[in-house]
Amino acid sequence: MAFTPATTEQRFVLDHVVRIGEIAATERYAAASDDVVDAVLEGVGQLASGEWAPLNRTGDTVGAKWTPDGVVMPDGFAQAYKDYVEGGWGGIGVEEEWGGQGLPFAIQTAVLDTLGSANMGFALCPTLTVGAIEALQHHGSPEQQALYLPHLATGEWTGTMNLTEPQAGSDVGALRATATPLGDGKWSIKGTKIYISFGDHDMAPNIVHLVLARTPGAPAGTKGISLFLVPKFRLQEDGTPGEFNDVRVVSIEHKMGLHASPTCVLSFGDNDDCIGELIGAELGGIRAMFTMMNNARLNVGLQGVQVAEGATQGAVAYALDRVQSARAGSPNKDSVKIVEHPDVRRMLMRMKAQTQAARALVYYAAGQVDRANLGDCAARNRLELVTPLAKAHGTDLGNEVASLGIQVHGGMGYVEETGAAQYFRDARITPIYEGTNGIQAADLVGRKLGLDNGGAFATLIADIRAEAKDERLLALVDACEAIGRKLATADADDKLAASYPFLTMLSVATCGWLMERQGGVAGTDDFGRMKAAAVRFYLDQIVPEAMGLNAAANASAAVLYSIEPELFAA
Amino acid sequence: MAFTPATTEQRFVLDHVVRIGEIAATERYAAASDDVVDAVLEGVGQLASGEWAPLNRTGDTVGAKWTPDGVVMPDGFAQAYKDYVEGGWGGIGVEEEWGGQGLPFAIQTAVLDTLGSANMGFALCPTLTVGAIEALQHHGSPEQQALYLPHLATGEWTGTMNLTEPQAGSDVGALRATATPLGDGKWSIKGTKIYISFGDHDMAPNIVHLVLARTPGAPAGTKGISLFLVPKFRLQEDGTPGEFNDVRVVSIEHKMGLHASPTCVLSFGDNDDCIGELIGAELGGIRAMFTMMNNARLNVGLQGVQVAEGATQGAVAYALDRVQSARAGSPNKDSVKIVEHPDVRRMLMRMKAQTQAARALVYYAAGQVDRANLGDCAARNRLELVTPLAKAHGTDLGNEVASLGIQVHGGMGYVEETGAAQYFRDARITPIYEGTNGIQAADLVGRKLGLDNGGAFATLIADIRAEAKDERLLALVDACEAIGRKLATADADDKLAASYPFLTMLSVATCGWLMERQGGVAGTDDFGRMKAAAVRFYLDQIVPEAMGLNAAANASAAVLYSIEPELFAA
Repeated sequence: MAFTPATTEQRFVLDHVVRIGEIAATERYAAASDDVVDAVLEGVGQLASGEWAPLNRTGDTVGAKWTPDGVVMPDGFAQAYKDYVEGGWGGIGVEEEWGGQGLPFAIQTAVLDTLGSANMGFALCPTLTVGAIEALQHHGSPEQQALYLPHLATGEWTGTMNLTEPQAGSDVGALRATATPLGDGKWSIKGTKIYISFGDHDMAPNIVHLVLARTPGAPAGTKGISLFLVPKFRLQEDGTPGEFNDVRVVSIEHKMGLHASPTCVLSFGDNDDCIGELIGAELGGIRAMFTMMNNARLNVGLQGVQVAEGATQGAVAYALDRVQSARAGSPNKDSVKIVEHPDVRRMLMRMKAQTQAARALVYYAAGQVDRANLGDCAARNRLELVTPLAKAHGTDLGNEVASLGIQVHGGMGYVEETGAAQYFRDARITPIYEGTNGIQAADLVGRKLGLDNGGAFATLIADIRAEAKDERLLALVDACEAIGRKLATADADDKLAASYPFLTMLSVATCGWLMERQGGVAGTDDFGRMKAAAVRFYLDQIVPEAMGLNAAANASAAVLYSIEPELFAA
Repeated sequence: MAFTPATTEQRFVLDHVVRIGEIAATERYAAASDDVVDAVLEGVGQLASGEWAPLNRTGDTVGAKWTPDGVVMPDGFAQAYKDYVEGGWGGIGVEEEWGGQGLPFAIQTAVLDTLGSANMGFALCPTLTVGAIEALQHHGSPEQQALYLPHLATGEWTGTMNLTEPQAGSDVGALRATATPLGDGKWSIKGTKIYISFGDHDMAPNIVHLVLARTPGAPAGTKGISLFLVPKFRLQEDGTPGEFNDVRVVSIEHKMGLHASPTCVLSFGDNDDCIGELIGAELGGIRAMFTMMNNARLNVGLQGVQVAEGATQGAVAYALDRVQSARAGSPNKDSVKIVEHPDVRRMLMRMKAQTQAARALVYYAAGQVDRANLGDCAARNRLELVTPLAKAHGTDLGNEVASLGIQVHGGMGYVEETGAAQYFRDARITPIYEGTNGIQAADLVGRKLGLDNGGAFATLIADIRAEAKDERLLALVDACEAIGRKLATADADDKLAASYPFLTMLSVATCGWLMERQGGVAGTDDFGRMKAAAVRFYLDQIVPEAMGLNAAANASAAVLYSIEPELFAA
């Protein structure tokens, strides 16, 4: 299926949701002029539709393969990646000091949106590199920055995040990998990490692993964790990759989807010859990890947008082509394109509206990254508050839209050839990795509601209320405010039992606000009319639907703990 | 993962939802004594857990394979099928006249529930045979019945349903397969059918295809369709399979899931040597098809129950075993089983509640089949009304629960080895085949609301209202009644635009009624306490959630048609 970059929509969201003009008016982001933004969106759209999208199905059917010499990507990926590097796409959001283009995070978000809509599994590679860059920019020493950042900024080298171990999934503090000082400022790294996306591949001459490990005598839990930089190949005197650094790919996972992305089990120091460098302070790993993870969470929320965009384009194309049955109630008994049938239209409209909502939410959060970088403390708080929403609700919507995409295709959606099934399979990991959506909900009620003594939450509510006009949206906002206040003082079990429905309600309220705003400025051209219809559908149907979660978000944990755990098996 | 038959739950639902005692009190179903029912549930549970469940993963990973000589099933399936036939499980619901056991359809439902919870793809084979048996029982000639039913009743021969053609999916009337009279009462069949589940396999010496085709001069559309019996091997004088009947398996589909079930493209009469017999009257095909399809729809709704049961068992077992993180708010900092975490419990409780709700709805509908067979006209109407609910909502719940099952497993859910992903992939076809869920919703608002001049709908509402006590449930019933009245006179587009959310609301109201009833009679043993908790969760959270669809179910089609179809691609 042909992929069309959502350039008009992206530009519209950048203008009216991110308000990129305000960001570009600052000295730091002056490079983000209208012309440059347009050129970036156009350019990456060409790369995505011309080179990345045609590899989407190969990525799924052939997939990354483990070999004793490392992971081999399907044919075509190395070249498409090379063109990405040479086009300068890796450095969009990286500071100019390191060879990047210094554009706002929101623009980098749009670039990754386009690449991932074309080929989500492939785009995970640049996404992870961006995480490594951010960790080094914030926590690396000047030497580390000078040696590694220029190569990461171009995408010439790629990056990974190594958190998870078999016994330490969501509970990062339980990890056991060790780092032992070698006396020369370097460390010997030992341990096994699992679920390492693009932990190995054959598209780059080096891979920079950021690895969480424990130093000798470190306290238990997250306080005892340090972050290490562990290259696949150690750097030589001239800074080029040299000797193999004893990082072995044990296997790759047999996953339901996202086959283009090799999910590796990495073994560090099997031969006691894996050398790492500390990033930031010893025992400061969890802080550095959160730097890396927070934006990574937005980028996973963005994967929800990507898969929703791809699935919607596929379903719309199918519904505009497939002829089946006459329209009910019509005197004309000729079969029509299925887009003419009301329930198919309802599904397509929902797909459009939810895709737009997800994009608005994630881009909005991305804009807060830029504002926070500009020193805006309110934006920093806003970012903290909306990050779990963007990650969890963005990925939930990606899954919902991908499922509707199959349904629009009917039986054809269940056979692999149409690609609808791939979106559905690819999407399903996104509510899990980078902190499960349940953990996002726990983060929302456990940390974010209390941020700034509740000020961050109160300000979001006030901002929505100040701008929103739709009555149902305002009712949802009222409900969110009441629940937020109640949960702030609830006990842990009650708070967590209500967290997920509350997260959904607050996400829909935020999306409703941003959608209504877009509806207010939509023009009368084709794009504007589609936008207006999607906004109206969102406010008319999706906002009231979220109010249905009010009971669950107000429920206590009592019913959940009314039985012993073993009774679930009764 | 070990599969445990849900015998206690099934018995409880048969007693309190189906009220099997009333049915067994009739002469026709006197065989369904308490002892017999218990023995059936126990016996099929042993077959399912001992032989069918261990093949579930093989069915997925190896799958049915196409060869030039026909479809080959994975190792072990032929033997497991033989044991099913020899155990007498095929004939549970077939009239004794044909060698069956003459038990109620509700009992057969429980049997298929257990087999499909163990191995959904495999259980589709008996499910389809049951459809063929019903068509022949109702529409076959005495000769056809005598020749075929005894072999189908045991399951020795299997059956298929051949409706779909490439250009005729949901629009059955568009089919083009032809039947030409041969002069001896037989017909020459020619055409290609797609999506034929178990259209070929190597577990039975003959396969009985029921094929919709057009006779010469037949009118266009569904009125011109006749139903034909087309065996894979023609019967010899002695009734045993003889000559090959020119039914060729062209290919099998490469599906996202349900790999144990070969989905065939069948070509009839490539060599002009495919002979069929008319079933029922010429041009009476659509009526015969509906006989076959209506109960097939219940059996697909039952697949939602099956997949929900399997996925829930898997997730519960994992959550009772996997240790991760301390419980939030607890002074004890030791890691606990994840079932102790509130959001995991919420997911498990939801899985239990939705599985129970789906089972109640589908078994309830199955009980109406028996009551209708006993001549109860009200039950016949009730069956008609709840069939689209059971099919659509049952399968929607199967999908929801399978997705939660992955989420409970975290990253392990996305790798194929745990089996959680298989449930998710297997489930996704069920909202599509046997009439998409959108078509079920159209059937509800287009035909069923008006049944008996609205009496069928009004009676369901009255029955629920007479028994229900929960206020939120009563509010949902009121809302359903109001929407139903409004839709009865709405124009076609508005009716269809609101059909899906309305179907969900009415389904939840019906499930809420049946769940509340069960909660009222649940005992104080482990099973009863789990039941009571699930019922409370259902009424407290899921019923109010459905009220959130009220706006969508009251919306007109205006917003959907406010744009030209091409704008969906804008």
